[in-house]
Amino acid sequence: MKHSLPNFRIAIVGSGAIGCYYGGKLAQFGRDVHFLMRGDLEVVRKRGIRIRGKGENVHVPKVQAHARTEEIGRCDLVIVAVKMTSNAELPSLIAPLLGEGTMILTLQNGLGSEEFLAQHFGAERILGGLCFICLNRTGPGMIEHYDHGRLVIGEFGRYPQARTHDIAWEFKRCGVVCSIVADLALERWRKLVWNIPFNGLSVAAGGLDTAAILADDGLRRLAVELMDETIAIANRCGCRLPTAAALDQIKRTEAMGEYKPSTLIDYLARRPLEIEAIWGEPLRRGQAAGMEAPRLEMLYRLLVSLDRVQRK
Amino acid sequence: MKHSLPNFRIAIVGSGAIGCYYGGKLAQFGRDVHFLMRGDLEVVRKRGIRIRGKGENVHVPKVQAHARTEEIGRCDLVIVAVKMTSNAELPSLIAPLLGEGTMILTLQNGLGSEEFLAQHFGAERILGGLCFICLNRTGPGMIEHYDHGRLVIGEFGRYPQARTHDIAWEFKRCGVVCSIVADLALERWRKLVWNIPFNGLSVAAGGLDTAAILADDGLRRLAVELMDETIAIANRCGCRLPTAAALDQIKRTEAMGEYKPSTLIDYLARRPLEIEAIWGEPLRRGQAAGMEAPRLEMLYRLLVSLDRVQRK
Repeated sequence: MKHSLPNFRIAIVGSGAIGCYYGGKLAQFGRDVHFLMRGDLEVVRKRGIRIRGKGENVHVPKVQAHARTEEIGRCDLVIVAVKMTSNAELPSLIAPLLGEGTMILTLQNGLGSEEFLAQHFGAERILGGLCFICLNRTGPGMIEHYDHGRLVIGEFGRYPQARTHDIAWEFKRCGVVCSIVADLALERWRKLVWNIPFNGLSVAAGGLDTAAILADDGLRRLAVELMDETIAIANRCGCRLPTAAALDQIKRTEAMGEYKPSTLIDYLARRPLEIEAIWGEPLRRGQAAGMEAPRLEMLYRLLVSLDRVQRK
Repeated sequence: MKHSLPNFRIAIVGSGAIGCYYGGKLAQFGRDVHFLMRGDLEVVRKRGIRIRGKGENVHVPKVQAHARTEEIGRCDLVIVAVKMTSNAELPSLIAPLLGEGTMILTLQNGLGSEEFLAQHFGAERILGGLCFICLNRTGPGMIEHYDHGRLVIGEFGRYPQARTHDIAWEFKRCGVVCSIVADLALERWRKLVWNIPFNGLSVAAGGLDTAAILADDGLRRLAVELMDETIAIANRCGCRLPTAAALDQIKRTEAMGEYKPSTLIDYLARRPLEIEAIWGEPLRRGQAAGMEAPRLEMLYRLLVSLDRVQRK
């Protein structure tokens, strides 16, 4: 791989669907990727990582899988792909992977991930990425790829750097559509404008895909109202989103067909929902800025309850 | 029964839990009660009506049960106890029961029942009642009485009349705690202030009883906010409810313990929910009066979806 960065070591912290997919793509093309794994460790060491669906049939037979980050040691790039619900463990998991110039790229959902990591490891290391993809982990190292796949990366609180382009190139060389954004925070809000209504209503309205939400007049209007509340908070927080963003996203979603948001997939699999990152943190930022968002607040409270009841 | 009205014929239209309970109490004390029944007809003719629980063990062995209201003929009092979701059938069901002075007492939930019946049969016939009771139909004519039992009756758009007192006395003589209200519409709104949050959240928040709703800080606040929206609409519609009504009701609900609202019981039994009467109609009256009620509107839309998904 002549164009790749020499001796560039990559750690994947969190080997669920997102970690195995993007880490697996990098490993497939010969990158030096180390996966932190727990329950799946033995099976993945034996059988490797498989990615199927959406025209892909990838098998990475030999995977460098480790039970502890101390075994991995210093890396050049740490990709964080654990759910936000496991963040309490992150500081101790990441520490052994860090050298002087180690970059941390978080692929976590919602708001707050970069801030959390910056607090623990310094803002200068932190990059963030948004995954526009629909995946499901169907077994240890077994990833079903349903739709999309695009990765959007940017720097935390800075314009893109040379290193941002280097990382994007690495992904692109490994078959991942990857682009760079100048304003990562703005992109996070733009993604939330979609995730807040569609991920939320998919669960709160009874287990609906995006097509079913849009086919119900009341829910469709509620989705737009939730988008408008989110755009208003984003604008108040200094991220200028056009007010027409809601209608654009509705149109885009219509073209997606019967799409199952990740929160619905988690809910149906009885996994914990990333409620704080997607609904709680945007709501709190709005409240801190003196804004009312009654529908977002209500959705947040219902999801907290549904998540608790489901996992009781 | 010396004090009862002579030759006073009563029809019960809708022999679910409410119809069998109040009709059963009247029949138990020798009143001339005729029940309209469908699927349960044969079993009830054989085994009668049973009411159990909450210190009651009532058996009415001989029940005047009929398959058609034509068989019953003219009555002095028609008690309407079908779910609001079956209202389309009511006009043809009730017509054969009416003579010149026949009164219609509707025990249906929510808003709109008196107006609907007045439209079809004239406002002067119509009385309404609110049932503060928790019942479940466990089989044909088998009623489980969980809690409460009080009946509150009033005239539609008029002050109480001599006949209102007569009916209340009949219930009281048959062991039903029954009181009269001067302003029926106000009482309907007062009951909605409770039903809108607690019946709604019991379903939308994942199947919770009242104690579980109150134990969750976010849902408790949401319940108060929904009450405040309802009170604001009631006031705008001319029904003056004190703004402290919300806190009073929260306190009263705390004393009720783990109470399952009727909508939750219906939902768990996969029966259609009375969404239009409890949430839809109050919302539409608010909208007609130019009021915003974002939480009530959102709850309404989510319940419509949950009901549809559940019975698909």
